[in-house]
Amino acid sequence: MNTTQHYDLLKNLRQRRQKLAGLVNFPTILWSGGRLSRNYPALTYPFRASSHFLYFAGLPLENAAVRLESGKLELFLDDAPLSSTLWHGEMPKRAEIAELIGADAAFPMAELKSRAKGAATVAVQDYLTQLQQSEILDRPLFLAKSPAGIDLELTEAIISLRLCHDAASLAELRQAAAVTVEIHKAGMAATPTARIEADVRAAMESVIISQNMTYAYPSIVTVHGEVLHSEHYHHPLQAGDLLLADVGAETSMGWAADVTRTWPVSGKFSPTQKAIYDLVLAAHDACIARIIPGIEYQDIHLLAARIMASGLVDLGILRGHVEDLVEMDAHALFFVHGIGHLIGLDVHDMEDFGDLAGYEKGRVRSSRFGLGYLRLNRVLQAGMLVSIEPGFYQVPAILNDLEIRYKYQEVVVWERLEKFADVRGIRIEDDILVTEGGREVLTAKLPTKALEIEELVAVNT
Amino acid sequence: MNTTQHYDLLKNLRQRRQKLAGLVNFPTILWSGGRLSRNYPALTYPFRASSHFLYFAGLPLENAAVRLESGKLELFLDDAPLSSTLWHGEMPKRAEIAELIGADAAFPMAELKSRAKGAATVAVQDYLTQLQQSEILDRPLFLAKSPAGIDLELTEAIISLRLCHDAASLAELRQAAAVTVEIHKAGMAATPTARIEADVRAAMESVIISQNMTYAYPSIVTVHGEVLHSEHYHHPLQAGDLLLADVGAETSMGWAADVTRTWPVSGKFSPTQKAIYDLVLAAHDACIARIIPGIEYQDIHLLAARIMASGLVDLGILRGHVEDLVEMDAHALFFVHGIGHLIGLDVHDMEDFGDLAGYEKGRVRSSRFGLGYLRLNRVLQAGMLVSIEPGFYQVPAILNDLEIRYKYQEVVVWERLEKFADVRGIRIEDDILVTEGGREVLTAKLPTKALEIEELVAVNT
Repeated sequence: MNTTQHYDLLKNLRQRRQKLAGLVNFPTILWSGGRLSRNYPALTYPFRASSHFLYFAGLPLENAAVRLESGKLELFLDDAPLSSTLWHGEMPKRAEIAELIGADAAFPMAELKSRAKGAATVAVQDYLTQLQQSEILDRPLFLAKSPAGIDLELTEAIISLRLCHDAASLAELRQAAAVTVEIHKAGMAATPTARIEADVRAAMESVIISQNMTYAYPSIVTVHGEVLHSEHYHHPLQAGDLLLADVGAETSMGWAADVTRTWPVSGKFSPTQKAIYDLVLAAHDACIARIIPGIEYQDIHLLAARIMASGLVDLGILRGHVEDLVEMDAHALFFVHGIGHLIGLDVHDMEDFGDLAGYEKGRVRSSRFGLGYLRLNRVLQAGMLVSIEPGFYQVPAILNDLEIRYKYQEVVVWERLEKFADVRGIRIEDDILVTEGGREVLTAKLPTKALEIEELVAVNT
Repeated sequence: MNTTQHYDLLKNLRQRRQKLAGLVNFPTILWSGGRLSRNYPALTYPFRASSHFLYFAGLPLENAAVRLESGKLELFLDDAPLSSTLWHGEMPKRAEIAELIGADAAFPMAELKSRAKGAATVAVQDYLTQLQQSEILDRPLFLAKSPAGIDLELTEAIISLRLCHDAASLAELRQAAAVTVEIHKAGMAATPTARIEADVRAAMESVIISQNMTYAYPSIVTVHGEVLHSEHYHHPLQAGDLLLADVGAETSMGWAADVTRTWPVSGKFSPTQKAIYDLVLAAHDACIARIIPGIEYQDIHLLAARIMASGLVDLGILRGHVEDLVEMDAHALFFVHGIGHLIGLDVHDMEDFGDLAGYEKGRVRSSRFGLGYLRLNRVLQAGMLVSIEPGFYQVPAILNDLEIRYKYQEVVVWERLEKFADVRGIRIEDDILVTEGGREVLTAKLPTKALEIEELVAVNT
């Protein structure tokens, strides 16, 4: 980070703290969390600071806390013991870190207890730090997804801030998006020489590693796109397969990107694959074009549902009137999830708050098959970053379910569907910033058109 | 895994269970542990089953437990709910898994409590599962490094089994070693075109990913080898630098390799680098040659200390008699850690037991600077896998310490040392199996000689 960037970051950090002070009239303490043991205490998973801590503190400090009140920030952090120098090198001291993040004061952790009275907080993910939170606040802790009292007030304040991104967070999100574009190009380029899914994953994640970033979520790189969160990478790549890759980078400060592309292993979509791909792309493009401040995100989801239903009628897979099909969730037999979600410090931003962030106050998840998986149900505002990710999947657990087959027997043309057996899963996903004037696709440099995708796959053959 | 391999694994798993039954006369319950949340509950770190569970169960099952008694194994595991099929695909059912691991019976988790009476256990690393262990056993839990009563008896029994590897574990360890050889070759080959350390790390870890393995420990890839466990990868690679890479693969069943090589960024060691490299290599080779059943591992460490001291005298960096220098820990100013450790399911095998595994009963860590970092202090037996990893480091925190400079003023030739400023850190590490006849270097296919290393680095230029 150069001096100008650091100055800008500090300015935004101070603004976030000021804005919080305008929303709550009690002190807030946010913990960063600690490392989690993997095999034994000294062998840990990579550290990831709590997103709420990162939002106000700006740096992924371990075992730290910040106390926010009236726009001021106090940092609580213990200096590393001298003995750790041998193993971890010279570490910056508390005072240096305090300056780096624009803290107004800094103390050892032991001082926190005496300054914790009446403070609200958000529960972190790691259990040991949760115990510490409860001990220092001297009260039982509400879990983040069901806060009450001042913790609920704080949660709502944090949501209102984190929903819309400022210049500092946008700079990070753009960086994550730019690297993620390169990740996917590398995956396509590696496909012709790959034996198994893992080879493509390796090519994609090596871009992340060489950028000193991490993945924002476990990479999905699979010829079984119908398994939505597949974590298997052992399947061989075969000529007729589609490869679905949902991989995104996270910057060192914690900001995410979330992108999916689906490409043909052979470098050439089959006619059936191309037909479905173009349909998903039509939904993708139409949904993005509809993004503008003031629109209901659920309406964008329903637009995708109508386009998918209509296209599947044109392809002879569904029959009936589009509005009726959507009404009875027939589109959701194939487009089995929501059109997208918030993106920020978390790939599903603030999902630790359950639906408090994703759903406008007073709204709850629908019990409808075709709406219940929607993660975001708000009026879009400038500064929000959302994913748009329509898809088509043939999930055996859904399509072979006898009850479902019976319910939809009149509208699904099963014998026609069989012709599309080589389309197990397709998803096309980009990250879109809501702007005053409409939208900006942060991942626009990654092609979506079938022909361009084919060219990127074939580049190495 | 083919049928023969599976048959061999089952045979070994049954033998492990039988052997345990010969050592303890109470039931044992081992938990696998659960996933740990990263940002929010659904976004987790990659799952890693407890090593002790893996040793007896053979598969990395999540949220499972096994009960061992009289050589029989009962599996406790809940089937995944039907709703998870959409996200994770079809999962094998409890009965299938029970057959796969040769369980004698299988139950849902809810049954465990009724079969937990009088059982010993080992505390897992994740805190939520620890709470479950305590709740089900209906007693406070001893931490793994300080067990008591039947938990201590169990710990000692597990140590006696895991110290020496059987055919099934050796097959895995050989696989980890073979992949790790390729990892390092890839790192050397990537160096000439790398900008920063992260580029080399990316090339190395992409070999791990494409093999569907994970890293056995956080990779160290650094031009600051003097920081022993550096987790930074942002430094540019410059012509005069040495790059130290300590990277090892872990198989999908959890078995580790641990290898370090140090190579010149330019493809050519400087004369000073070559001199120290050859000295470290001489220690490495001599220590490996000394491995044989019956020898004290600490004597191998002291052999390395003498060779390092003697070589540093020859180079004019130390002065005095070798035995005196070792006696006063002068070698440890530069060779700042132990000669190695056990390797198995953990890269520092069974380090969750503290020194109970690494140190023969009745032995404790030395308070001597030159011995206190030794992780293994046992008589070697056939079947043990150990690392041999001598090194030379110029750690500022040690060499600039005024007390240390004063204490060693007569034996360190500081002005001579200054000539070796381009040698910040060198380590050469291999994995050696103790055999009946002596030893087998599992990682022998990775060259160690300076000339061969230079050739592997230069291969791409």
